[in-house]
Amino acid sequence: MTQPEVRRRPGRPRDEDLEQLVLDAALEMIDADQEITVSKLVERSGVSRAAIYRRWPSMTLLIASALNTGRVVPPAISLEGDLRQNLFEALFGHGAEQTVEMYSESRFRQRIRLVMADKELQLAYWQSHVKLRRVPIEQALRAGMEQGILRQDLDVEACFDALAGSAYYQLVVRGDSFRLPQTRARLEAAFETVWRGMVA
Amino acid sequence: MTQPEVRRRPGRPRDEDLEQLVLDAALEMIDADQEITVSKLVERSGVSRAAIYRRWPSMTLLIASALNTGRVVPPAISLEGDLRQNLFEALFGHGAEQTVEMYSESRFRQRIRLVMADKELQLAYWQSHVKLRRVPIEQALRAGMEQGILRQDLDVEACFDALAGSAYYQLVVRGDSFRLPQTRARLEAAFETVWRGMVA
Repeated sequence: MTQPEVRRRPGRPRDEDLEQLVLDAALEMIDADQEITVSKLVERSGVSRAAIYRRWPSMTLLIASALNTGRVVPPAISLEGDLRQNLFEALFGHGAEQTVEMYSESRFRQRIRLVMADKELQLAYWQSHVKLRRVPIEQALRAGMEQGILRQDLDVEACFDALAGSAYYQLVVRGDSFRLPQTRARLEAAFETVWRGMVA
Repeated sequence: MTQPEVRRRPGRPRDEDLEQLVLDAALEMIDADQEITVSKLVERSGVSRAAIYRRWPSMTLLIASALNTGRVVPPAISLEGDLRQNLFEALFGHGAEQTVEMYSESRFRQRIRLVMADKELQLAYWQSHVKLRRVPIEQALRAGMEQGILRQDLDVEACFDALAGSAYYQLVVRGDSFRLPQTRARLEAAFETVWRGMVA
């Protein structure tokens, strides 16, 4: 049996296609460590200057979108079963490399370099992307408080910062990869310590 | 009464003076975001190529030294009094901006940019500088375990990573300054959570 083909309308490309062409061009420049300008984006992507400005009111927002390529907001965390286990899996489990190390270590390092060089970009990326990815974990922590599993007086944002900060510290300060067993053991120990500090 | 003057011997400058001339020249280039080469260092510092190579076997070690300028290993933490309070002061107290934000935010951001661009530099800086600055806190945590204040099964390095990681997260991900009251409140809440997870 043959699968029905998804028909694409002929003619003008869809907005999402144009968007991806521009982001791909931007990512190429980021990976090659080149300065990104609208002129170069127009040249490489074939998308018009007007269309680029329509989609992204500033270069900062465009670069933030490009850095976010391939990243998704993780799914909601199950409130059934063992909260400790569900949280650990979502943060540091094998499906969760996305959470911090993302698609590739070199892309991660480029992102940190760029946001360290440009505070406006850092705040834009934080507001439009990182903050959204934190939501599922923060919701699970709040649910744990409501269920009486976690302390009533937790500062959920600070708890997230301690958990994610442990992971960032490995990559940004130690220069260790999550693939190393000793790094994973350290993250697990950090998680256990923060978890004990959160339980009611 | 006049203070006795510290006499400097005339003639050849001392090794430490030469060293500082080279590090100052390197820092100028780091702050100006320029590539550092031995030729430029010779030109700007007036110190000979041979003397530079004698002191730093590699450019990586030289840049790591330059990034560490003005930073010191913090003093040992008192084992008298309230360990919780002493640890908090050493990590996030008013005298402790040194610990993470150091001399200036822009120097911090430059350091992170450079180590993200160069893993060899990251590992050299970690080995020769960051690791040493962790020692007083790690020693205090071990003393707390021996005194029965902290749990016997703590992974001291992981605890440090969670505490320092909370602080790095503010600067590297959120882009917040330690001078903001809400940042300090978040760090305090993160510390309290980790502390509860460490106590026996």
